[in-house]
Amino acid sequence: MGNEHTSKQYDQELEAVRARVLKMGGLVEQQITQAMQALADGDVTLADRVNAQDHEVNAMEVGIDEDCTHIIARRQPAAGDLRLIVAIIKTITDLERIGDEAAKIARMTKSLHGTDRLYRPRIVEMRHAANIGVQMLRKSLDAFARLDTASATQVLRDDQQVDDAFRGILRQLITFMMEDPRTISPSIEILFAAKALERIGDHAKNMAEYVIYLVEGKDVRHIAVDQVEREVLR
Amino acid sequence: MGNEHTSKQYDQELEAVRARVLKMGGLVEQQITQAMQALADGDVTLADRVNAQDHEVNAMEVGIDEDCTHIIARRQPAAGDLRLIVAIIKTITDLERIGDEAAKIARMTKSLHGTDRLYRPRIVEMRHAANIGVQMLRKSLDAFARLDTASATQVLRDDQQVDDAFRGILRQLITFMMEDPRTISPSIEILFAAKALERIGDHAKNMAEYVIYLVEGKDVRHIAVDQVEREVLR
Repeated sequence: MGNEHTSKQYDQELEAVRARVLKMGGLVEQQITQAMQALADGDVTLADRVNAQDHEVNAMEVGIDEDCTHIIARRQPAAGDLRLIVAIIKTITDLERIGDEAAKIARMTKSLHGTDRLYRPRIVEMRHAANIGVQMLRKSLDAFARLDTASATQVLRDDQQVDDAFRGILRQLITFMMEDPRTISPSIEILFAAKALERIGDHAKNMAEYVIYLVEGKDVRHIAVDQVEREVLR
Repeated sequence: MGNEHTSKQYDQELEAVRARVLKMGGLVEQQITQAMQALADGDVTLADRVNAQDHEVNAMEVGIDEDCTHIIARRQPAAGDLRLIVAIIKTITDLERIGDEAAKIARMTKSLHGTDRLYRPRIVEMRHAANIGVQMLRKSLDAFARLDTASATQVLRDDQQVDDAFRGILRQLITFMMEDPRTISPSIEILFAAKALERIGDHAKNMAEYVIYLVEGKDVRHIAVDQVEREVLR
């Protein structure tokens, strides 16, 4: 009986740490959405809130990392359980960095406050990139929750879209700066916010790769998406 | 005897994976140095070589990750050994991303080739940021090799320097762009190269934090450097 009880407890521990990852993911998703809202509305109070949440996200990363090392030390996980723990250790690093990027976007609200009317058009264009980024993150978290490699593979495809959106914003900002050099300083701020969105896409892609590793036992980082699709979506 | 032999083998396995991390670190360090050289000299051949090395760095990341999961599965590491494995899993992610940033700098050599005379002054200023970044990486790797928390803590301090150097480059580029709007496009390229150097500093800082975790068992991410110094350098 002792053994069965232990095993049930172990299952509960794995389930608890998975749930914490999803909770952390939800918080980070909210951070991006609110950071974009703050930037679009010039809402400094909301921007401050996004920044404050960053501490919570950081604490979750540290806590989940501790859970994972405790599980390795006490439970000696093997096979799928071990892949789950390794995937979680890597996933939360990316989630924490997505949170950092959201906080960066929020901080730009302050420096752009006052010039927001001038920049509203650019911010509207950024919404497209932000939407792709948020959807990539959501799909990665969903794929993690449901062990869905098809959804994870789709995220690898989507990364191209957020890169294209970034390059579109970059081209428009360059035109804008050349037409009116007084806009150079605030344009550079917007450019960094757009870069943060592109990086959010990169991190979501990393997370999707860990889901494929977790489910298939295959390390698909550094492999072209066409090949991943052939190998994973047989 | 069987047990002793196993333990000796285990020690050799840990030593081998540590050595591989240091080798990967050396390769990545060389990538940054060569990428900056390629950019300064407009040396497209060297830039291509840096890009090609990126595959080698990626393969090392995948290989070391496999070593680590095998060690966890077969050796059931505890305490310091487990911290070493977790620190390595995290460290190689940062090393791989430093390699990516170096490859990005190398790729800029091509797009800036031809305008290099115009940009030589900015590139000279970037050398300062690059030197700090390379030194941070070297110190982090040294701290990892010698389990030296004093050196690791110094890297946390150095991060401020690379951030300051980045902001200096940014200010100069903005002045440059405002004086002559035709320079906007190439200036943005230089700006991204400078941003890559700043990110290299961030990754080296992460690596230094893992060394402190490895030696002290303390997670010092998200803690102000003054407090880390008080707690670690007693």
